[in-house]
Amino acid sequence: MRVVLIGNGRVATNLLPALQQAGHDVVSINSRTLEDLPEKADIYIIAVKDSALHDVICQAAKGRGEQFFVHTAGSLSLDIFEGCCRHYGVFYPMQTFSKEKQVDFSHVPLFIEASDSLALTTVRSLATSLSNSVYVLSSEERKYLHLSAVFACNFANHCYALSAEILEAHGLPFSVMQPLIDETAEKVRTMHPRDAQTGPAVRSDENVIAAQKALLAVRPDIQEIYDIMSKSIQKLAHDKL
Amino acid sequence: MRVVLIGNGRVATNLLPALQQAGHDVVSINSRTLEDLPEKADIYIIAVKDSALHDVICQAAKGRGEQFFVHTAGSLSLDIFEGCCRHYGVFYPMQTFSKEKQVDFSHVPLFIEASDSLALTTVRSLATSLSNSVYVLSSEERKYLHLSAVFACNFANHCYALSAEILEAHGLPFSVMQPLIDETAEKVRTMHPRDAQTGPAVRSDENVIAAQKALLAVRPDIQEIYDIMSKSIQKLAHDKL
Repeated sequence: MRVVLIGNGRVATNLLPALQQAGHDVVSINSRTLEDLPEKADIYIIAVKDSALHDVICQAAKGRGEQFFVHTAGSLSLDIFEGCCRHYGVFYPMQTFSKEKQVDFSHVPLFIEASDSLALTTVRSLATSLSNSVYVLSSEERKYLHLSAVFACNFANHCYALSAEILEAHGLPFSVMQPLIDETAEKVRTMHPRDAQTGPAVRSDENVIAAQKALLAVRPDIQEIYDIMSKSIQKLAHDKL
Repeated sequence: MRVVLIGNGRVATNLLPALQQAGHDVVSINSRTLEDLPEKADIYIIAVKDSALHDVICQAAKGRGEQFFVHTAGSLSLDIFEGCCRHYGVFYPMQTFSKEKQVDFSHVPLFIEASDSLALTTVRSLATSLSNSVYVLSSEERKYLHLSAVFACNFANHCYALSAEILEAHGLPFSVMQPLIDETAEKVRTMHPRDAQTGPAVRSDENVIAAQKALLAVRPDIQEIYDIMSKSIQKLAHDKL
């Protein structure tokens, strides 16, 4: 397919080589130089930051009303295209992308949606050329999917970052945590995370909880997170019974 | 080595086959049937719950004052042995153990400590027979290590569990999160978790943050965690600058 990719952020940086490796003919365009935008393509992928998306869509679609546009944002709905073009869709790769690290797209779940059946056929064909996991999902459901991803990825990563804060304050290297991090992630393949839980909170070991909170007295911000997460673990374990 | 393993909880269940596979002669004893405890061994490993540890130590060491005892608890210090026996140590395998899933001990970091140099030689010899990552660490430092592990493992797993709560409330399977969970864990091998962070909080996308908080209005307990974690991510990103 002839693909135009607009943007040069984290998603675009990871998507470009994946599109090329899948054999597509790709034109990559910076969102600031839309004057160079080709007049025709099988699909235009707009991978720019959420706050700029609506403006870039309208600018890119001007005079290209019959072309097919998709965006890649997990939290923005399909109707952001309304009034700018007629055929549009969403192509949301649910993964944590960084410019420093190339992701293997074949394992990235892709959540797609489109304005009409022809558009859906096009975006599905593109998606299946890149990944083995392609799902059609409505904008409404995608909101909750994206919210869940914030917990499973951003908040889990923040737990790693707080772990690193504590270790580094005591001269211990964060790298010692990697086997534990790996096993925690691996474990939920075969066990539900509710059942996989271990540690002082889930076993209601109030002595250890009190002692660990005391260690965090110097960091009240982290202490508050310790407290609220421990209580939430206990609530979830109790609700399960 | 002739090893006596006391306990039948999560740690003991994972430790027993690892000790056997390493070629040790192991006697496994339930902490409730200490009358069957052998009179002599190269090392007695007490892997029981924290709250029972002191009692089990004193009972097991009675009449075995010259034997060498270790415990496996991350949060309990070396001096819990004082007054019960003369040669003692700590053998803390930092991992999340479940009875349902056997862990490969060769990748488990082991943190050891001992009352004297002879005891340290014994526990180090045992540890290196099981794992490639053996560290000598004081009780004081181990407290912070264990606290960090609660964040990197228990709290990260709780983020998975909250993600599952949201997904399942909307009919989406938790399994779609696995590639994201894997990549999030994998990424911190090569990037510091502070630098690996992505998502609405770290890019201060207040529109998305407000919309996601609104989605959680039906679950104020999870909404509170969303709020406090997002603010903490922003604080950490700001402190880094």
